Amino acid sequence: MQSIQSYIKDNKDRFLGELIDLLKIPSISADSAYKGDVLKTAEVIKTSLENAGCDHVEICKTEGYPIVYGEKIINKNLPTILVYGHYDVQPPDPLDLWNSPPFEPVIQKTELHPEGAIFARGACDDKGQMYMHVKAMEFMTANNELPCNVKFMIEGEEEVGSVNLAKFVKANREKLTNDVILISDTGMIAPDVPSITTGLRGLSYVEVEVTGPNRDLHSGLYGGAVANPINVLTKMIASLHDDNNHITIPGFYYKVENLSDAERAEMAKAPFSLEAYKKSLDIDAVYGEEGYTTNERNSIRPTLDVNGIWGGYTGEGAKTVIASKAYAKISMRLVPNQDWEEITELFKTHFESIAPKGVTVKVTPHHGGQGYVTPIDSVGYKAASKAYEQTFGKTPIPQRSGGSIPIVSLFEQELKSKTILMGFGLDSDAIHSPNEHFGVWNYLKGIETIPYFYKYFTELSK
Amino acid sequence: MQSIQSYIKDNKDRFLGELIDLLKIPSISADSAYKGDVLKTAEVIKTSLENAGCDHVEICKTEGYPIVYGEKIINKNLPTILVYGHYDVQPPDPLDLWNSPPFEPVIQKTELHPEGAIFARGACDDKGQMYMHVKAMEFMTANNELPCNVKFMIEGEEEVGSVNLAKFVKANREKLTNDVILISDTGMIAPDVPSITTGLRGLSYVEVEVTGPNRDLHSGLYGGAVANPINVLTKMIASLHDDNNHITIPGFYYKVENLSDAERAEMAKAPFSLEAYKKSLDIDAVYGEEGYTTNERNSIRPTLDVNGIWGGYTGEGAKTVIASKAYAKISMRLVPNQDWEEITELFKTHFESIAPKGVTVKVTPHHGGQGYVTPIDSVGYKAASKAYEQTFGKTPIPQRSGGSIPIVSLFEQELKSKTILMGFGLDSDAIHSPNEHFGVWNYLKGIETIPYFYKYFTELSK
Repeated sequence: MQSIQSYIKDNKDRFLGELIDLLKIPSISADSAYKGDVLKTAEVIKTSLENAGCDHVEICKTEGYPIVYGEKIINKNLPTILVYGHYDVQPPDPLDLWNSPPFEPVIQKTELHPEGAIFARGACDDKGQMYMHVKAMEFMTANNELPCNVKFMIEGEEEVGSVNLAKFVKANREKLTNDVILISDTGMIAPDVPSITTGLRGLSYVEVEVTGPNRDLHSGLYGGAVANPINVLTKMIASLHDDNNHITIPGFYYKVENLSDAERAEMAKAPFSLEAYKKSLDIDAVYGEEGYTTNERNSIRPTLDVNGIWGGYTGEGAKTVIASKAYAKISMRLVPNQDWEEITELFKTHFESIAPKGVTVKVTPHHGGQGYVTPIDSVGYKAASKAYEQTFGKTPIPQRSGGSIPIVSLFEQELKSKTILMGFGLDSDAIHSPNEHFGVWNYLKGIETIPYFYKYFTELSK
Repeated sequence: MQSIQSYIKDNKDRFLGELIDLLKIPSISADSAYKGDVLKTAEVIKTSLENAGCDHVEICKTEGYPIVYGEKIINKNLPTILVYGHYDVQPPDPLDLWNSPPFEPVIQKTELHPEGAIFARGACDDKGQMYMHVKAMEFMTANNELPCNVKFMIEGEEEVGSVNLAKFVKANREKLTNDVILISDTGMIAPDVPSITTGLRGLSYVEVEVTGPNRDLHSGLYGGAVANPINVLTKMIASLHDDNNHITIPGFYYKVENLSDAERAEMAKAPFSLEAYKKSLDIDAVYGEEGYTTNERNSIRPTLDVNGIWGGYTGEGAKTVIASKAYAKISMRLVPNQDWEEITELFKTHFESIAPKGVTVKVTPHHGGQGYVTPIDSVGYKAASKAYEQTFGKTPIPQRSGGSIPIVSLFEQELKSKTILMGFGLDSDAIHSPNEHFGVWNYLKGIETIPYFYKYFTELSK
């Protein structure tokens, strides 16, 4: 029977070609203009699961984009792994910062990816990492090496909040019964430093609108006499952080989980070079909450970032106008114990309360999700750790991620099972940014590692 | 010989038709996409001046858009009036707030314009007000009533700073010699309250760019750990005003002209209803510099307004990104004695100095101009006052405008003559805004009043 290593060697070009074809479809869930492409992507995923050996593959309709489900039940007495991933991608703009078109994948070598990386929107987040599981499944079924039952649940709305997936999960607890949930939608510290993500931040994403006069005004005739919605918005947003970069929303930190010095010391052991970090971003200094290190600021501490702002004249040249309205998209990353709906409410109440006279403020919640932490003594974590040891020759480091996969905490709540986050991308892979890419080596290493997780999880579950 | 009143009665429809045709051409000087239309407009103006009886009408090339010049010299011993206006217009956006397309003029009645108003970009600023002078000229030459010499200088770059007009004036002092400069590019207090603008604010218009990381970043992986250019920009802009809405740029107020209590008391006499003002803008309160009234804030006090801001994701839905760059367009309205180039330099120095570590800031000056005040005891002012008395039956009120016509102070400096600002538009005509309009009554009243200015200016100059 063929080993996974030799199977990958024989099928490498096909594995890359199939992923590249998948990346050519602009499945942007945030922009309704791409609806047809998102739906088409679901069809492609369905076919790929069938080809990988799944049974009963179906496209499950929702009020939004569909969920592709497939399974392979070989023996009711064996454990069941539920694989989750998403086929939608982030919007690619700003387009002018891409070195190659976001939906025309190219493979290029980089300093961190000497064997080449696939450059395309979704290459790493999450089409590439999701497709590793499809190809690992193909290997196991083709070589009769599937040691347990498996269920695939691939959604198309992860980048817009997984609202309909949540409904789907609540409505299909029976169908989705499993012993562990396996996800590759996070990163690893470095190619030679494998890591398992044990924590995720929650998220609250809101949009704010400040309205002043009922129409755009001439800034000469009215300037200085009426509230300028843009000036007001900048004052309101600026006031959300104090001089130490603490967030000023009353009650915001109330439930924040505080790590012990021992836990912080453990975290500090993860290899990290501040100089390399600054160099990779071309910044002369980092910036953040007083009293915490960079790795703490982006993982165990909550944040508030403006993701977009707009108002007035933004075209070429000059226009002397006072805009009637100004807008911003603001997201808060939350840590365990912070409830995203409660935080969204605290934000709304506070933001509306600081509006000066002369303007009206509207806060519209977009979506959100809870944070998550997983124990490192579970069967799932141990199986993942052994899998990495097998293929990387090293014990992986447990790490908190600053990112959010809001659905994970819902999985635990509804399906009563733990999630194992085996990420193979790098933070520098520019997910959500121009020139997103995923290393060819990482892609293939993921396909190689996943079957070992199945093997050890089945053995350790006995 | 026919009176101006009966001439207007006979030609009203043609006067309106010609203006409407002129308004159909989108002569947007700020946007190079409309270059052809701006140039075409210059040709139309040339023809209209020829038809109005001007001699030697020419399109004077500049490094930017051309200046249309024409004259009628009837007697070297008579005074000469130089008429200035502009044929370019502001960009029309936001387009979705227009009730009818900005370049498809329609006439509609409004509360303030019971006889109807022409709705179109440029209707009031300045095509409509400029064209009043062309039609008044037509009347005077057709009826042999031109009492003095006249020169027309109509430019196409007023909305973008009149940079090339300044060069043209300096290079053509001889050609432009005059006894008074007449401009209709301002407003009047109300249809039954004629006013003459005796002051204009200066202007400094800059664009700022804040750059953080070298690429857009995932707000989960990097949020809280690096300076977010949008958050930083809001903090920097917010800090430009203190809690009393004084501008915090060091040296900004150093040369500001302070009016005496007597002058402020005189200003306060102008009819003004704060309730009506708030109602017309749908705002519950005015907002501005502590210690000054609304009419002072928008005329005798300098201001700082953000005219546009943008950065990050501004599309539909949500994108969890930290933008690499954030931008804003900022303009400062200046009062007499403030030098716009000095203020621009003070802004640049201060804004760059308050940039925190982790970002770089670039300030790019767009354009600017000096403020202006004109005395009310000049021959020109007296002639204008008598002209209004003749056609409105009331003595006009002298008033400071908050707007800027940067070129006016340069006229005085280079041509050694005073400028008389006879405005016939209303502040509520929404210039620079969606649904800009100009009252049919105001348009015709302007055409009726202008010849009397010629008459009285010539008589009073003897």
